Amino acid sequence: MNTNLDTPAVLIDRVVVERNILRTQGFLDGIGLKLRPHIKTHKLPWLAKRQVAAGAAGITCQKIGEAEIMADAGIGDILITYNILGREKLARLRHLASRCDLTVSADNEIVVDGLSATFSESGKPLKVLVECDTGHGRCGVQNPEDALKLAQMIEQSAGLTFYGLMTYPAAHDMKRVEAWLQNAKNLLEKAGLPCPVISIGGTPNLRSAGEVPTATEYRAGTYIYNDRSLVLAGACSIGDCALTVQATVVSRPTETRAIIDAGSKILTSDLFGLNGYGLIPEAPKAQISGLSEEHGTIDLANSGWDPAIGDQVAIIPNHACVVSNMVNFVYIRRRDGSVEKSLVAARGCVS
Amino acid sequence: MNTNLDTPAVLIDRVVVERNILRTQGFLDGIGLKLRPHIKTHKLPWLAKRQVAAGAAGITCQKIGEAEIMADAGIGDILITYNILGREKLARLRHLASRCDLTVSADNEIVVDGLSATFSESGKPLKVLVECDTGHGRCGVQNPEDALKLAQMIEQSAGLTFYGLMTYPAAHDMKRVEAWLQNAKNLLEKAGLPCPVISIGGTPNLRSAGEVPTATEYRAGTYIYNDRSLVLAGACSIGDCALTVQATVVSRPTETRAIIDAGSKILTSDLFGLNGYGLIPEAPKAQISGLSEEHGTIDLANSGWDPAIGDQVAIIPNHACVVSNMVNFVYIRRRDGSVEKSLVAARGCVS
Repeated sequence: MNTNLDTPAVLIDRVVVERNILRTQGFLDGIGLKLRPHIKTHKLPWLAKRQVAAGAAGITCQKIGEAEIMADAGIGDILITYNILGREKLARLRHLASRCDLTVSADNEIVVDGLSATFSESGKPLKVLVECDTGHGRCGVQNPEDALKLAQMIEQSAGLTFYGLMTYPAAHDMKRVEAWLQNAKNLLEKAGLPCPVISIGGTPNLRSAGEVPTATEYRAGTYIYNDRSLVLAGACSIGDCALTVQATVVSRPTETRAIIDAGSKILTSDLFGLNGYGLIPEAPKAQISGLSEEHGTIDLANSGWDPAIGDQVAIIPNHACVVSNMVNFVYIRRRDGSVEKSLVAARGCVS
Repeated sequence: MNTNLDTPAVLIDRVVVERNILRTQGFLDGIGLKLRPHIKTHKLPWLAKRQVAAGAAGITCQKIGEAEIMADAGIGDILITYNILGREKLARLRHLASRCDLTVSADNEIVVDGLSATFSESGKPLKVLVECDTGHGRCGVQNPEDALKLAQMIEQSAGLTFYGLMTYPAAHDMKRVEAWLQNAKNLLEKAGLPCPVISIGGTPNLRSAGEVPTATEYRAGTYIYNDRSLVLAGACSIGDCALTVQATVVSRPTETRAIIDAGSKILTSDLFGLNGYGLIPEAPKAQISGLSEEHGTIDLANSGWDPAIGDQVAIIPNHACVVSNMVNFVYIRRRDGSVEKSLVAARGCVS
């Protein structure tokens, strides 16, 4: 299919996006969980607003810079799921809190001390969730007892209020996540600390969200676009993938080799344990076997595919969230087939 | 070492950059090869100009967008080592050729046809190199006979002039590269087609450039910053690495785990077959064992290192060229210790 786009380009199918938004919102509504989309996937203020209009409770950001751009666009309820440290970031956080309903997370006392010093005279206490390591092995307090201790410290800190628990359960054992959080919630309630929010997340586990009845909200990002890793994990179908990288065949050096103008500077090197750097729906047996920065090498052996130089190719990347972060603009294909350019406003917000 | 930079940030040591520029220029001067730096590594016009001032013959770009920005900055001699296809790109190429001394490459007849149609009435023939696959297995004609055929086609095409050969010999067998190019050059000269330029490249092989005496110029990008992959390949020392990612320890969930605020959205997932996602010079046994988008997980086991939350960490990434492409700004540390912010002007020039 030739889109007439100058390649490489990131193309977003608005119809598929809308279906993904409504389906996920409907699923979580059905099991009584709030949805708090993670905007890291699209970094587009207008899509964040669409997610909220469709029923999301607010949004999730990972970086203050992302949250600033979303607040600028009028998003009212923002959770930053990150340990925020350092004078510059804390000063920005205080400004941000003055213009939206802000919640952050923390997993250690040093972060809590910095937040308290920043908000002690703000007049409006900052809501802080305790980040819990329920099995993923990244950030988070290591057990429910430590969650209680940190919650107590937060509650006793000037300018802060303990607001609940947060975890990223990328581990697929959702029953373990539930046991961990239930245990922590019980300890907290016995200590007189209610948990208004228990926030879990991750698109791969989204359909198992019902196995964590203690949770009050679900954070997910990738569901809005989906990608090859989610197709291969059985979390969605190829037709649910809204984001494609449009590339052009620029060389056919041999019978079995095609070179495209999409390399690691647009598809990224994210493999997620998969073979190859993306899926070509029109030739699913063709393997994107290697990437250099601006070239992708496609192995055509046994693919039954023989693209010509100049042909345009659509690729579903392994990981959508990192691809939209590579480009200054994405292209949005509307229901009527028209294509609009859209600034990835929160791209490059590294801090 | 604390730089007071808000993290994560990409920091460039100007003193090391200058040494790398002068050393590589001096080495290639010594063996009689021109240097044509690839600006994909830094994407900074002022560094490209510094490379030219230090003796480079011109620059190499992979994308028209990069070349446009470099021409805007006053760079006069630009080689784009890419098969350029499509109406929009060809129109831009013609504009670009009107304001700099431009050379491009091609490895197939379709590309040559497009170039000829674009330049047939330009008055100034476009210089075209034939790209040769001398063993790397990416783009390029597959044998010297095909190089001759394509060169003859270029020479007979309106608006174009055959200007020589180009190859990217990432394969380490430089003697094979020499034999290939020598053979092609002989065929061309017998056919009455001189080769003013025979362009080879690649920082990893730079010290073996003398093994390809047929070459007239060398393209290299990464040498200006160097990186962990080049240190481990023996191509440079740790002290030659000018680019570091500055990160902050944001969590210490366990005795052996530290989490930093640098993930795949700044370090990238480029592994190059190495273990871990970068080198921490102050703790070389600490392994950056995993990245998610905004977190890096460091395994401290047996590292003898016990960083505190809030500590700033310098990381030499596996691959420098993709890291500077992730950020809108890099920070330049001058000889006097001062630090300046510098726009990565050609970042995001995907087409």
